[in-house]
Amino acid sequence: MEKVVIALGGKSLQPKGNHPTAEAQLKVVKKTCEHLADISCKGYEIAIVHGNGPQVGDILLASEEAGDVTPAMPFDVCGAMSQGYIGYHLQQALKYAMSARGKNIPVLTVATQVIVDKNDPAFANPIKPIGASYTEEEAKVMQAEKGFPMREYGNKGWRRLVASPAPQRIVELDAIKAMWGSKIVISCGGGGIPVIENMDGTLEGVAAVIDKDYAAELLAENLNADVLLILTEVENVALNWNTPEQQNLSSMSLKEGAKYIEEGQFQAGTMLPKVEAAMKFVRCYPDKKAIITSLDKAMEALEGKSGTTITFA
Amino acid sequence: MEKVVIALGGKSLQPKGNHPTAEAQLKVVKKTCEHLADISCKGYEIAIVHGNGPQVGDILLASEEAGDVTPAMPFDVCGAMSQGYIGYHLQQALKYAMSARGKNIPVLTVATQVIVDKNDPAFANPIKPIGASYTEEEAKVMQAEKGFPMREYGNKGWRRLVASPAPQRIVELDAIKAMWGSKIVISCGGGGIPVIENMDGTLEGVAAVIDKDYAAELLAENLNADVLLILTEVENVALNWNTPEQQNLSSMSLKEGAKYIEEGQFQAGTMLPKVEAAMKFVRCYPDKKAIITSLDKAMEALEGKSGTTITFA
Repeated sequence: MEKVVIALGGKSLQPKGNHPTAEAQLKVVKKTCEHLADISCKGYEIAIVHGNGPQVGDILLASEEAGDVTPAMPFDVCGAMSQGYIGYHLQQALKYAMSARGKNIPVLTVATQVIVDKNDPAFANPIKPIGASYTEEEAKVMQAEKGFPMREYGNKGWRRLVASPAPQRIVELDAIKAMWGSKIVISCGGGGIPVIENMDGTLEGVAAVIDKDYAAELLAENLNADVLLILTEVENVALNWNTPEQQNLSSMSLKEGAKYIEEGQFQAGTMLPKVEAAMKFVRCYPDKKAIITSLDKAMEALEGKSGTTITFA
Repeated sequence: MEKVVIALGGKSLQPKGNHPTAEAQLKVVKKTCEHLADISCKGYEIAIVHGNGPQVGDILLASEEAGDVTPAMPFDVCGAMSQGYIGYHLQQALKYAMSARGKNIPVLTVATQVIVDKNDPAFANPIKPIGASYTEEEAKVMQAEKGFPMREYGNKGWRRLVASPAPQRIVELDAIKAMWGSKIVISCGGGGIPVIENMDGTLEGVAAVIDKDYAAELLAENLNADVLLILTEVENVALNWNTPEQQNLSSMSLKEGAKYIEEGQFQAGTMLPKVEAAMKFVRCYPDKKAIITSLDKAMEALEGKSGTTITFA
């Protein structure tokens, strides 16, 4: 039975538009889980990793807005909260979708910490905007008082930036590994709660965003998965994307991928991390494959009939 | 090896005072986990259930306060978020405390749904105030528009009320059971995310508060635990509490407990649910015991040297 780690993008979790309600999210999640249940019932052993960008953003935003009545939450805690929020919706909907197919398999969300290197160069160059927008004055105060790096976004005002370091180790890995196959585990939500490991062995949450595609890759590596399946908004990785010369790719080798990246074919923050995560997985396991496609083409893609399959050669 | 389900009260998680910061919570949680690790290292197989009253209250408060910039979260989602928040702190601190004792055991937080009966009489009589305080005018609008039951609390203004139904079934039980012993599982946080089961088999989150002591009891029953250990602020259950005639109890049979409850010895919302949960457990397993005591006396209590032990006869 093939083991598949599935990375769910934000669009599989929420409707388009800013600040959707939790009820609107649940509707989208229910549809997504129909697809996931189909994959599981086809005989694949799946594990789920999901993004949390809009959700953790809204949690932090609410927390900061309400700072006068109750203290704002640190960003690592916001991440933990988003894992509870999204995981709850996914496990509720997926459990039902499985039951409706006659399969009674436990579906479980695990709060997941992911260790990052405190010396990761990403910390010197924070690039991910999070939370509310502030005036220049407010931003200067936050910078001075809390040491938050802040950046101006044109008319949108000033926002706080955090680093996006690489995931090094999944703290709860052993438990996730032990459950693989007999349960569907939702873990590493939002890329995991980022923590650093101190010299004395304590873990300490940090304000950072781990890319969920890199976290899913690390999980797939550690679980010795057969397939890393990265779901996004488009059916295929494409060259000359969104131009008249767009060329969809059904397959891509490491050599081709490296060339396309050098050509600047893939956009940072969207397709690039997905392609990089996919390539890292097949570099690690040359006999395995990674797939990038859309949710509704996922099953066909697993059967080799759609999507972009990334292989070693 | 004795199996112990431990119910942690709010005071084991946060410092006194309203609206503590997450950082202040983590400090308290670290101390609490030293005790929990001692218990585990003594050879007991433990599972953790925790309260979430102040935390879920602050999450909802922030969510409502920020309602103008991002939609307020439904109460079931606030509960899921609190499980992520508190579970993350507990699993981080407990894992370290175990490592420091030379024990490398996975510590895992599981998002947990608990089914309640939609016909539970508690729904006809909501008693738990949650979230922010409102003016009479605002309260009337909320009552009319959202159907929230609201009640006036003297000078403190109007607050929303939710029901406190009894837990019927732990949705993620099979997985929690499978991990018992080989992992320390943190589950049923805040009594669990309350859901009702619809006729079509779907689960649906509801705005309600499940008492964490009742949820811990249900878990202990289902896991066939040897001991239900309910930790609170006082070392003993007492008669004539807080009077010159206070009499601490080192043991209590079901017969005695029933008599004391009839006498009104135990306060609703604080000691009464703990005593009731303890009694339910030994009614179910007459050869087992429940203990009510404080965190720092927990180990002695397990050895029969402190606390109040509740037994069948």
